[in-house]
Amino acid sequence: MESEARRNVLRLFTYGMYAVSAHHAGASNAFLANWLAQCSFDPPMLVLAVERDARTLALIRGGGFFAVHVLASGQREFAGMLGRSSRTVPDKLKNVRWHPSAHTQCPILEDTLGYVECRVVGEMPAGDSVIVVGEVINAALLSNGEPAPLTMKETGFKHSG
Amino acid sequence: MESEARRNVLRLFTYGMYAVSAHHAGASNAFLANWLAQCSFDPPMLVLAVERDARTLALIRGGGFFAVHVLASGQREFAGMLGRSSRTVPDKLKNVRWHPSAHTQCPILEDTLGYVECRVVGEMPAGDSVIVVGEVINAALLSNGEPAPLTMKETGFKHSG
Repeated sequence: MESEARRNVLRLFTYGMYAVSAHHAGASNAFLANWLAQCSFDPPMLVLAVERDARTLALIRGGGFFAVHVLASGQREFAGMLGRSSRTVPDKLKNVRWHPSAHTQCPILEDTLGYVECRVVGEMPAGDSVIVVGEVINAALLSNGEPAPLTMKETGFKHSG
Repeated sequence: MESEARRNVLRLFTYGMYAVSAHHAGASNAFLANWLAQCSFDPPMLVLAVERDARTLALIRGGGFFAVHVLASGQREFAGMLGRSSRTVPDKLKNVRWHPSAHTQCPILEDTLGYVECRVVGEMPAGDSVIVVGEVINAALLSNGEPAPLTMKETGFKHSG
């Protein structure tokens, strides 16, 4: 297989940009995600790929919940900060407006378009990542539909290929 | 949970539009998919949610492979045809330019921006759907980068919520 062809095709895939957060045993964290999608209508479920060594993966597993926030057009810098390694930015929530969810204790990031909270219902390994499946148990819209959601295309980031 | 809030947030998720095809025991088919994402860099893998009763799911399972094609901006009508039920449109490939892949026998849809072919490496149930994980084993770009990929937003379709 030509790896350049593979990379070029995979980079044609369309993605939104999301902040995924979780909480466990006193620790809260969030990271930038684009490899996620809904995967069931009834019940409503999401599938999310998380790098094996992501700090938040331990919180998702330990707490059993995660929250997915839709970022807004114009939040490229915010997205970039969330996308840095926890080793480089130990406290990514430091300068972010957030509060713990009453349902799941996951950090709710207030400057986003809205969020869904999920209860983990399964996981499976997938190469260098882990696929986590969650059932949506709570949701809130934090905007009136403006601005539009942030897309990978707008950021110019390349997390695929 | 307010189901309206949930639907409104899930409809803010950003999706591309893809044609997924498979072949088994003399039968070939394709369907319109948007619930998919890359899920590993090394090895390159994709995760795809397929409705339990989709005819192509049996072909994916039986053949052990699937191909994901990136649709192009302007292909709303083509996408709509691929999105209809196999019960309504028994032969969706009838008026489509395609040939069987030499690697996997999956139908290669020629009027798309490019495709990746995957070998199924796992699956798990997820509500009304099945999550299929595939490793990318072949890929080809069929365009020079124009037009842009088709997005769910361009089509106005609502397969989420």
